[in-house]
Amino acid sequence: MVQNKVFMYKSVPDGWPVPGKDLTVEDIGFDEAAPPPKGGFTTKNLYATYDPSQRGRMRHETVKSYSPAMAVGKPVVSVHVLGKVLKSDTPKIKEGSTVLMMSHYTEEYSAVPESAVKSTQVIEPKPGVPLTAYLGLMGMTGMTAYGSLHEIGQPKRGDVILVSAAAGAVGQAVGQIARQEGLHVIGSVGDDKKLDFIINELGFSSGFNYKKENISDAVKRLAPDGIDIYYDNVGGELLDVALANMKDFGRIVACGTISTYNDGSNSTRYGVQNYSAVVRKRLRWQGFIVYDPTIIRWKKERDEKVAQWIADGSFKSVDYVTHGMDHAVEGFLGMLKGENLGKSILKVADSES
Amino acid sequence: MVQNKVFMYKSVPDGWPVPGKDLTVEDIGFDEAAPPPKGGFTTKNLYATYDPSQRGRMRHETVKSYSPAMAVGKPVVSVHVLGKVLKSDTPKIKEGSTVLMMSHYTEEYSAVPESAVKSTQVIEPKPGVPLTAYLGLMGMTGMTAYGSLHEIGQPKRGDVILVSAAAGAVGQAVGQIARQEGLHVIGSVGDDKKLDFIINELGFSSGFNYKKENISDAVKRLAPDGIDIYYDNVGGELLDVALANMKDFGRIVACGTISTYNDGSNSTRYGVQNYSAVVRKRLRWQGFIVYDPTIIRWKKERDEKVAQWIADGSFKSVDYVTHGMDHAVEGFLGMLKGENLGKSILKVADSES
Ligand SMILES: NC(=O)c1ccc[n+]([C@@H]2O[C@H](COP(=O)([O-])OP(=O)(O)OC[C@H]3O[C@@H](n4cnc5c(N)ncnc54)[C@H](OP(=O)(O)O)[C@@H]3O)[C@@H](O)[C@H]2O)c1
Ligand SMILES: NC(=O)c1ccc[n+]([C@@H]2O[C@H](COP(=O)([O-])OP(=O)(O)OC[C@H]3O[C@@H](n4cnc5c(N)ncnc54)[C@H](OP(=O)(O)O)[C@@H]3O)[C@@H](O)[C@H]2O)c1
Repeated sequence: MVQNKVFMYKSVPDGWPVPGKDLTVEDIGFDEAAPPPKGGFTTKNLYATYDPSQRGRMRHETVKSYSPAMAVGKPVVSVHVLGKVLKSDTPKIKEGSTVLMMSHYTEEYSAVPESAVKSTQVIEPKPGVPLTAYLGLMGMTGMTAYGSLHEIGQPKRGDVILVSAAAGAVGQAVGQIARQEGLHVIGSVGDDKKLDFIINELGFSSGFNYKKENISDAVKRLAPDGIDIYYDNVGGELLDVALANMKDFGRIVACGTISTYNDGSNSTRYGVQNYSAVVRKRLRWQGFIVYDPTIIRWKKERDEKVAQWIADGSFKSVDYVTHGMDHAVEGFLGMLKGENLGKSILKVADSES
Repeated sequence: MVQNKVFMYKSVPDGWPVPGKDLTVEDIGFDEAAPPPKGGFTTKNLYATYDPSQRGRMRHETVKSYSPAMAVGKPVVSVHVLGKVLKSDTPKIKEGSTVLMMSHYTEEYSAVPESAVKSTQVIEPKPGVPLTAYLGLMGMTGMTAYGSLHEIGQPKRGDVILVSAAAGAVGQAVGQIARQEGLHVIGSVGDDKKLDFIINELGFSSGFNYKKENISDAVKRLAPDGIDIYYDNVGGELLDVALANMKDFGRIVACGTISTYNDGSNSTRYGVQNYSAVVRKRLRWQGFIVYDPTIIRWKKERDEKVAQWIADGSFKSVDYVTHGMDHAVEGFLGMLKGENLGKSILKVADSES
């Protein structure tokens, strides 16, 4: 038996998750000598992603939503876990290969059953594309950004787009794609370091720190003629301000409402007041989940374009890495607090060998 | 000179319009002997429509919106005025014919300039279709209902549709079209007489009185499996409840937000809290104005189908008539208060001769 630390989900948080109570790190052990599951394989894991949607799955099982509630007493489910294959009982997955597992436990070692082989992707990195990009721009996050921006946002060269949580995983991908396609890109962030980052590193046209400047003033200052596309990751007050500043026939891509995710059962929620603009300005406000067929159908185009943009240097794959399973809880809470620049990743093992 | 009473717009209301101050009836006189304007015509008017959008146009000219602010000191502009032509200086409009004028002053007599000839429609009622239907189902109201329900609502046989302000002009049209196309139609109204009317006269599947029953309980009771289409005329709390009860991939047709139209400059507005459902349930929430090309393109189909449904008796053209210009202000306020069953109309002249 070797040590197998896992990021454990102990109880349903009410509001902000409490470390040590709702979330812990525990060693459940792993038998390296055991054969792989029949038709399956075993891995030593390298990376796991942190995603805000994990918070949504930490709920009572009776509350319905698009993705199932996580099971209390089991490890936290990550959207992607990247691992090296130790042993395999399936010809589809070779020993020594690098695999990307979907909706997988956050753990150091995995015994993966045959049923999960179908959703496992063998990664052969394209030249110039780092392995971690497959957790972000080339993974679910990039798919989210690319698919929804095109499917719902209908971007045209010269359009003005406002992106919220602009330095986050999805936000920086949306902003870079939009910049690449000739849009005027404005980012909203909650930190001056992030503001500097999106403008000077990612090439956004402009941005503002919503914690420092009045949001309405900032949007009017940066988009005096209004907004064609609002890419909404946060909901709340910025959504209201965006509604008030949309141009006629504008599109709101409803990707997430992260400002509401840690509302406890007793907290009062922000109410959006400017919804009359939907009629008056003929807005189209539409939600999606990355696994919807209308979003996934952009995959081939995303795979090609984004890989090329990363490889030719015009696109940054930005990772924000938490080192080691011992820090898994902090890393998760850090992402919920918005400490990350770009994609939040947990580096499960300290070495990739 | 003959008497020519007009429904006069005196000043911009703050909140609820004040009779005698913001709105009056005045005699501005009309010279029957005068020739028609060059290239234009004169009319004695029979009917004018009341529409909630008139309230939106009673605003300061500096506030931008899709339709221009009304000019203070001029008669109130009605969406449609139906008149008999007295004299004509254009071959397109014959003396004695019945004409429907768009965005026209609410007055007993009109001198219509050449510039308005293009937007004037000569009415030759189809058999079985009453003249007043051209102010409602066969006019702008019916176009609103038919175009938006199909363009945005994408109704399919068996879908569950919730219609707000269901006994109003647009609501009763939407409900009847939906019923005719095999949907399960639920109406929300603010009055028991209206409830009886939509179910027993218009053939809605069910309905509730939002002033008597808790809205959320009512919607869950009548649509236990959720709503495919919410046709929103009112905004406010019902919109919030609808969001909470939409099915995945549901559509919200944003037609109006009448509950907000008389918000004064100091009143607090209702804030919609359940907007996270747009993401989670992948809703499409879209606004329109009846004059948008995507709505107008349904005109030919509307003209044929609705005329046929009225003529064969399966569809009711419902009018709520205020008699005489002296009651113009009351009639308008009555519509804003929601006293009308069906389309609100002002009968300008007491006789049609
Ligand atoms: N629909 C889909 O299929 C789909 C797929 C993936 C992600 N999403 C959603 O997309 C959004 C972004 O995800 P992500 O992966 O980019 O997350 P991320 O990298 O963790 O970024 C989230 C950012 O949101 C901001 N934030 C956190 N709490 C906030 C609050 N209370 N109010 C306002 N901003 C707050 C923070 O940035 P600042 O410091 O700048 O505030 C934070 O860095 C989330 O809402 C997520 O649920 C949706
Ligand atoms: N987008 C477009 O192009 C377009 C075109 C035409 C109309 N519209 C909009 O469609 C809506 C309906 O118009 P309509 O011509 O059918 O009007 P209508 O016949 O005057 O009906 C309006 C009904 O709304 C209800 N109502 C009034 N005040 C309310 C309040 N504060 N809260 C909730 N309900 C209230 C009343 O019914 P209850 O007694 O049942 O409450 C009233 O009878 C309006 O919002 C209008 O602006 C939009």
